[in-house]
Amino acid sequence: MSTYWQQLEQELPQLLEESRKTAAKGAVATYIPGLANAPRDALCISLLGTQGEQAHAGDCGFKFTMQSISKVFSLLLALLDSGEAKVFEKVGMEPTGDDFNSILKLELVDPGKPFNPFINAGAIAIASLIEGQSPREKAERMLEFVRTLADDDTLTWNEHVYESEKATAHRNRSLAYFLKDNGILEDDVEPTLDVYFRQCAIEVNTTQLARMALVLANHGCDPVTGRCFIPRHYVQIVNSFMVTCGMYNASGEFAIHVGIPAKSGVSGGILALIPGQMGIGLVGPSLNEKGNSVAGVQLLAALSERYDWSIF
Amino acid sequence: MSTYWQQLEQELPQLLEESRKTAAKGAVATYIPGLANAPRDALCISLLGTQGEQAHAGDCGFKFTMQSISKVFSLLLALLDSGEAKVFEKVGMEPTGDDFNSILKLELVDPGKPFNPFINAGAIAIASLIEGQSPREKAERMLEFVRTLADDDTLTWNEHVYESEKATAHRNRSLAYFLKDNGILEDDVEPTLDVYFRQCAIEVNTTQLARMALVLANHGCDPVTGRCFIPRHYVQIVNSFMVTCGMYNASGEFAIHVGIPAKSGVSGGILALIPGQMGIGLVGPSLNEKGNSVAGVQLLAALSERYDWSIF
Amino acid sequence: MSTYWQQLEQELPQLLEESRKTAAKGAVATYIPGLANAPRDALCISLLGTQGEQAHAGDCGFKFTMQSISKVFSLLLALLDSGEAKVFEKVGMEPTGDDFNSILKLELVDPGKPFNPFINAGAIAIASLIEGQSPREKAERMLEFVRTLADDDTLTWNEHVYESEKATAHRNRSLAYFLKDNGILEDDVEPTLDVYFRQCAIEVNTTQLARMALVLANHGCDPVTGRCFIPRHYVQIVNSFMVTCGMYNASGEFAIHVGIPAKSGVSGGILALIPGQMGIGLVGPSLNEKGNSVAGVQLLAALSERYDWSIF
Amino acid sequence: MSTYWQQLEQELPQLLEESRKTAAKGAVATYIPGLANAPRDALCISLLGTQGEQAHAGDCGFKFTMQSISKVFSLLLALLDSGEAKVFEKVGMEPTGDDFNSILKLELVDPGKPFNPFINAGAIAIASLIEGQSPREKAERMLEFVRTLADDDTLTWNEHVYESEKATAHRNRSLAYFLKDNGILEDDVEPTLDVYFRQCAIEVNTTQLARMALVLANHGCDPVTGRCFIPRHYVQIVNSFMVTCGMYNASGEFAIHVGIPAKSGVSGGILALIPGQMGIGLVGPSLNEKGNSVAGVQLLAALSERYDWSIF
Repeated sequence: MSTYWQQLEQELPQLLEESRKTAAKGAVATYIPGLANAPRDALCISLLGTQGEQAHAGDCGFKFTMQSISKVFSLLLALLDSGEAKVFEKVGMEPTGDDFNSILKLELVDPGKPFNPFINAGAIAIASLIEGQSPREKAERMLEFVRTLADDDTLTWNEHVYESEKATAHRNRSLAYFLKDNGILEDDVEPTLDVYFRQCAIEVNTTQLARMALVLANHGCDPVTGRCFIPRHYVQIVNSFMVTCGMYNASGEFAIHVGIPAKSGVSGGILALIPGQMGIGLVGPSLNEKGNSVAGVQLLAALSERYDWSIF
Repeated sequence: MSTYWQQLEQELPQLLEESRKTAAKGAVATYIPGLANAPRDALCISLLGTQGEQAHAGDCGFKFTMQSISKVFSLLLALLDSGEAKVFEKVGMEPTGDDFNSILKLELVDPGKPFNPFINAGAIAIASLIEGQSPREKAERMLEFVRTLADDDTLTWNEHVYESEKATAHRNRSLAYFLKDNGILEDDVEPTLDVYFRQCAIEVNTTQLARMALVLANHGCDPVTGRCFIPRHYVQIVNSFMVTCGMYNASGEFAIHVGIPAKSGVSGGILALIPGQMGIGLVGPSLNEKGNSVAGVQLLAALSERYDWSIF
Repeated sequence: MSTYWQQLEQELPQLLEESRKTAAKGAVATYIPGLANAPRDALCISLLGTQGEQAHAGDCGFKFTMQSISKVFSLLLALLDSGEAKVFEKVGMEPTGDDFNSILKLELVDPGKPFNPFINAGAIAIASLIEGQSPREKAERMLEFVRTLADDDTLTWNEHVYESEKATAHRNRSLAYFLKDNGILEDDVEPTLDVYFRQCAIEVNTTQLARMALVLANHGCDPVTGRCFIPRHYVQIVNSFMVTCGMYNASGEFAIHVGIPAKSGVSGGILALIPGQMGIGLVGPSLNEKGNSVAGVQLLAALSERYDWSIF
Repeated sequence: MSTYWQQLEQELPQLLEESRKTAAKGAVATYIPGLANAPRDALCISLLGTQGEQAHAGDCGFKFTMQSISKVFSLLLALLDSGEAKVFEKVGMEPTGDDFNSILKLELVDPGKPFNPFINAGAIAIASLIEGQSPREKAERMLEFVRTLADDDTLTWNEHVYESEKATAHRNRSLAYFLKDNGILEDDVEPTLDVYFRQCAIEVNTTQLARMALVLANHGCDPVTGRCFIPRHYVQIVNSFMVTCGMYNASGEFAIHVGIPAKSGVSGGILALIPGQMGIGLVGPSLNEKGNSVAGVQLLAALSERYDWSIF
């Protein structure tokens, strides 16, 4: 193992403990029961290098649902299934400056297509582009894709979280019916949302997240087996989106303070990566007002500064 | 019959024919099949005076659905059923300046309650305040109320129009789920929309519309029988709303050019009234870009100017 | 004097005292020094009937600037000077649902013309339509017009208020430059704003306001001398605007609770009228969050209910 | 010279000629006379490597004003003059999804500070943070800073372009007065705008642009002399902004198709860089609807694909 990774492994616990203190500034998401029970001050990080290096720190004994992190992989699967042209017929490529569940630009900006695939409206449109004969089949293809990238066949849905999101997702239904009215969504609303709720409910730990990120850091290929799952260009697309839109409407700030592609979820998870070097998975359930893990963002900023991670 | 009504009866046909020509500037609503078949150049008007006077002109041989005109009566029934306090907990009292199906202010303005009961979002919130054990019972109470005011037990729904609206009303579903998410809508979305679609699908002719308007012109009482159905204050509420919000976002223009309370529907119908004097029903299916009957607005403006109808 | 007016005169003081208590719920406008010194709990009302009747009550010993009430008269003068076609080329006829100093719809709605002449953007556009060789001459013509309607040659500007508005009106400058960019404002910005600041700074008492309102209540003619200053149609236009947009974005609520044409100003003044019957002037400097006199609105609502003033 | 640069030099002319054809799809900016005369189909590119390599192609015989490209350098100078804390008290770090001259979010989003320093509102706020006793002194310090980075003391303003922008910039004045009203802009409007208009009017050629970009590619230091002008962290800040907001509201698309930090101007200029490798300057006056050089973007996309430039 290189000096770099030895140092990283050694310093990681203390950096994590310092970051953990900031969790007190945020709060755990409570809009669904399945999220509200998460331990607020928990913090865990896993880093996996392209040469097989690894480092972990923190309370890594719990699982969490992918939530919005799944948008990275539904976009990739939609690109693989439907192609770039079809995908960008349904969603744009631009950050919005609005909240992730905002409906404003769907009405204000002609022709009403979601600005990007990482806001909820965009992710719902993307969910309809995944191939399959039924919502269940689409959701299973999505699960299979994530299992492959994580190199772990045990990954599955948290049925409880899936059910609670399905029961309470009125805003997502509002977005979906707006898209249906606009003609962006061709499928029916409920089957499409079902795919979306299932992808959000896939349960992971930080090592599994880091493993998926590693594939993206390694240009779409598994550095261990050498197998390539995703064309280089599609990796560039999702990495770009992670920088411009990955951290909700705090993406610009994250680009300045951390400077690496990352995608967060409301469960407190963050998937991040340093192109060519490593994949990162972390979780810290206490969120700031933008919906990102308080302690997680703090830890990534500290690491980026200490190890000069910024791609800029 | 007074000289006034004799003159009105005599001049009405020519004024109507002149107004009819303007129908060519508009177009029949096509968003549901049930509306698209209406005769574009048709125009019919009925006026009923508080002393039993009446005058009619035009092609009055066809029926049309009430559509947004029904919002006047669902508001009245909600006021009767739930009271003023409850009604204005769910909707505001202000015009919006936005399109009738706009969702913008629900997101932009805290606390996200519809600005008034005549935009679609407001009318959906109002539909949930009508009493009844089931959507069907609520819809039937609404029908019964309209039958009473029109003094005509034969009024009923156009099932075809009801079915087609129900099948295509994605934007209304989007609005309703947004209201559900905001906590404004307490009932479930589909049962509430079902009441709303049924009220929009009540089929009338201009005489029946004029008869309902007459009750509003006569302070809530039937001038023939003397029976009072609606408290004076509730009549003032709906008359106020008709002036400030009754003609979609052309209400200000209508107030200037016509100057009487009125409510239009996408079928081309308009209910209007001169307080203390008469109720008016008309239909002209060709709509302008704001969604009001082109020839109907023109005819009311001509009559208002000729007979000094403006309340201002 | 009629029984009606005798009763009004007799009951007015107590109704006023009851309304005065609500002043505690609001606050005096402080954005310019000239307004901040007004006595918060003061309340004064003057009513002038078309047959020469009158009634007054309250603390009527102070003057106040017209502020937004002047928009009624600049609109009338612009109509007289430039004609209806030119006026409505520059402003629309619709309420906005937004704050009086909002800039949103200028950017959002093509072609960027102010929705109505009573929001600030609209009033600035209107100020440019008043004839005159210089800002000073335009302002003087405006003052002369108000003097004529108030039948009082002593009316003049409060120079202190004029200067303080001129020094601090950054938002109005922002609106004006936006209009200049949109091509709505043809004149230069500062000279146009100068006319606008001067019209806002005309100082009146409630009797003078009521006298102006009386002309509008009397179809544009002075009921004492019989001289007519304003064509009937222009009176209808401003009365319509007063109902749909006169009380900022609480106009709909005022229409329901009071039901008469009225225009408020940030100094706490309100001009109101009952068509065919009387002109009303009042002042109560404590404002609610919408910018209307708290006690003034309360007093008008009490009077409207007691004397059945609503036109609806 | 490396093989890489030899190949680049050899292939550049043909790639440029192919990209040049797309200029026909756009149009030269005409809002000020100084821009309207630019040759639509002209296209020139200069690349300067950190090891002294260089390559040029196209019609490089004309100068153009920096326009929005200057926002990169005013941000840097404001950071140097006022520090990071003060800068981000006045502007945010997020892309907006709106047009570069939009005013919407200043009203909609509390507390009304511009979302980032590259939209016009943000750049105006930044201009006020440059130190100097007078607008002229501030503008001269800005010019001096640009001269230093370009290593060329002959750089100066195009007075004609400066004058025409000053005369016609009503929208920028509207933005500035809104900021003044919000309290974001502490200085007076016109002096601040004067600094802004002057920075936009600095005239350059592509070699000079590339030289400035080279400093940013080289972590803030001149690779020739080794002198460092800008702290590494500030370089990261502007490079991040260039990726998230540098190409107006086509920045997300540019990140996907090109994937390097870049900033465009309405004159058709683009400054771009590959961190650690090279600085790029180009100009192609024909703009697409987002305001970016059509042929310039096409050429950078072609080069990025061919030479694998994307940082993602």
